Amino acid sequence: MEGNPAPEAFPSETLREIASALWQKDPLAAQLYGPCEGLPELRRDLREYLRRDYGLHREDDDLIIVSGAQQGIELACSVLANAGDTVLCEAPTYADVLHTFALHGLKVVAVEVEEDGISLEGLAKALKEHEVRFLYLIPTFQNPTSHTMSLAKRKAVYDLVREHDTIIVEDDPYSALRFRGESLPSLKALDEDGRVLYIGTFSKILSPGFRVGYVCGDSYLLERMALAKLYNDVHSSVPAQIIAHSFLTAPGFQAHLEFARCIYRQKCDLMLETMDRLLAGRLAYTRPEGGFFIWCELPAGSDLPELTKALARANLAIAPGNVFSLDPAAPQRTFRLSFSRPSAAQIVRGIEILAEVMTTLGM
Amino acid sequence: MEGNPAPEAFPSETLREIASALWQKDPLAAQLYGPCEGLPELRRDLREYLRRDYGLHREDDDLIIVSGAQQGIELACSVLANAGDTVLCEAPTYADVLHTFALHGLKVVAVEVEEDGISLEGLAKALKEHEVRFLYLIPTFQNPTSHTMSLAKRKAVYDLVREHDTIIVEDDPYSALRFRGESLPSLKALDEDGRVLYIGTFSKILSPGFRVGYVCGDSYLLERMALAKLYNDVHSSVPAQIIAHSFLTAPGFQAHLEFARCIYRQKCDLMLETMDRLLAGRLAYTRPEGGFFIWCELPAGSDLPELTKALARANLAIAPGNVFSLDPAAPQRTFRLSFSRPSAAQIVRGIEILAEVMTTLGM
Repeated sequence: MEGNPAPEAFPSETLREIASALWQKDPLAAQLYGPCEGLPELRRDLREYLRRDYGLHREDDDLIIVSGAQQGIELACSVLANAGDTVLCEAPTYADVLHTFALHGLKVVAVEVEEDGISLEGLAKALKEHEVRFLYLIPTFQNPTSHTMSLAKRKAVYDLVREHDTIIVEDDPYSALRFRGESLPSLKALDEDGRVLYIGTFSKILSPGFRVGYVCGDSYLLERMALAKLYNDVHSSVPAQIIAHSFLTAPGFQAHLEFARCIYRQKCDLMLETMDRLLAGRLAYTRPEGGFFIWCELPAGSDLPELTKALARANLAIAPGNVFSLDPAAPQRTFRLSFSRPSAAQIVRGIEILAEVMTTLGM
Repeated sequence: MEGNPAPEAFPSETLREIASALWQKDPLAAQLYGPCEGLPELRRDLREYLRRDYGLHREDDDLIIVSGAQQGIELACSVLANAGDTVLCEAPTYADVLHTFALHGLKVVAVEVEEDGISLEGLAKALKEHEVRFLYLIPTFQNPTSHTMSLAKRKAVYDLVREHDTIIVEDDPYSALRFRGESLPSLKALDEDGRVLYIGTFSKILSPGFRVGYVCGDSYLLERMALAKLYNDVHSSVPAQIIAHSFLTAPGFQAHLEFARCIYRQKCDLMLETMDRLLAGRLAYTRPEGGFFIWCELPAGSDLPELTKALARANLAIAPGNVFSLDPAAPQRTFRLSFSRPSAAQIVRGIEILAEVMTTLGM
């Protein structure tokens, strides 16, 4: 259920150079035990990158390296909540996080995501009715909807969270891959009190296989997360951290991001054009400005399970809304398409299959 | 508190070759998301290695890759026990595991380790008095004592555990580094019912910085561990797994193990000879057949905290028994020396400092 990046958007040539340099120059550096909170040079240069490119400059904040964004969420659960506590997330939300919450014995309140982000009325009500340990939010190119929270809502959400004195875990895997429109400040960039834990990752821009992510947040919370990490996996794999650091500080880093954005824009546009051509008026879908997903909604009365099954027989996988829902058995009319991983030919063929199958089903 | 391997025992030249081959041949393989349970070829060849060299041939067993042995312990806690449950370990034991237990809210019963392994009387009593979810044991070159459980005790421990229908988590980081004496079967090798989870690691023979370990055990338990891992860090770093696999299957693998054993034997012998020369009769110490540690005991009435402080002033770190104890405040006369990481000159100088400081303190 993770978003699978496009292999052709990986910086394979740069990686080859970086990796051979690593093993020629100082193989020992990659072999010894490393510090639990991550390699100092990677932490320093990530802080600088987030300060420069993302406006994260809160002075009492620190940054630790984690084994992918998923581990950031896992450690946040360990440190911020106990079994039986309540947490809040968007509905729908990233599927795997619901399992992480369940494994920690957490109760979950889900608040509807609208086109401009989580419903403010829903959020205000939920925060009044429940003692929420933390909010798990994906404000930018949300998974699965690709909706992005407006600046006004970002400010209002932060104010509400402050009023109820709770914490935000902001998951931000996709904002470096904005391929259209204006960048918005992250919730972390609005954070004055140290109540936002910002989770970033190299998975979408370098390689998911490396498992290198990071958490930026208040030093006090991060110290506790680092301790939980020490007794979890000691530290993240050192060669992967060294390569991530070389990548981040390589002269071609910004150019690579631009290259990756260009690839995802082309793929997204190709999928949207094909949908406009073959599916216009037959279902509603988002027009994302970044990320990996297009979120679709069938007309009222449509049978999503029937469509999903028929598509599976035609060898086309879609992710039905059910997997992103707290109640997977509740009927849904929404589903997620990913344009990131398939090739151009697969994108066109996939939408053709979707249109053909829908026609066969009278949709 | 992990055992730090000797940098000169790392296969640096082999690693350099393996790593450059990886990036020349198929960089993409290292970049994509991998399977949660680990790379199939690494799992297959580790199973074969454990079958051939360690006699682990139980048919219903499986093997998953974890991000270092510590994660194996963490996942075992997640899957085998709930907060408030009781687990059992050796006294003294590996310090970090006590923190992992505490973070999971587990109660801990500790049973004395004797020279030939955990006390059978103590174990029988503890299993009678407590409902123990699992036993955490390091039967071979135990950390910190370097004691090794005799074959007779291994059989008796397994029988007791079977009688009480509980589970063993066997941590075995050091048995590949036996540099003297006869190998003994692991508890896992005696396991007929699938009640032993065997945790192994590449940290002591390849590199701790990579974070690649493995758990071999009953398929049913491993499926649950893999699921907990999925929601923890998705999978272990792929480049590290590919390199571990190339190392395991390289023609020089056995020769490298032999080379590493030779280094640790020489270092251990040098430390023991220097201790025999300068400290004979002034404290008791073990003569290990493998692993990284020598366990020392001061005579009755000795002031260990005073010695530790005086040694720290002389820039020599020892690990006092307190850090391996459930009750760190209880007075101890034992401490752990590591011969693995320091150079030959540092080993000799370290023991000289120990002897000088003890003389100064009238010990």
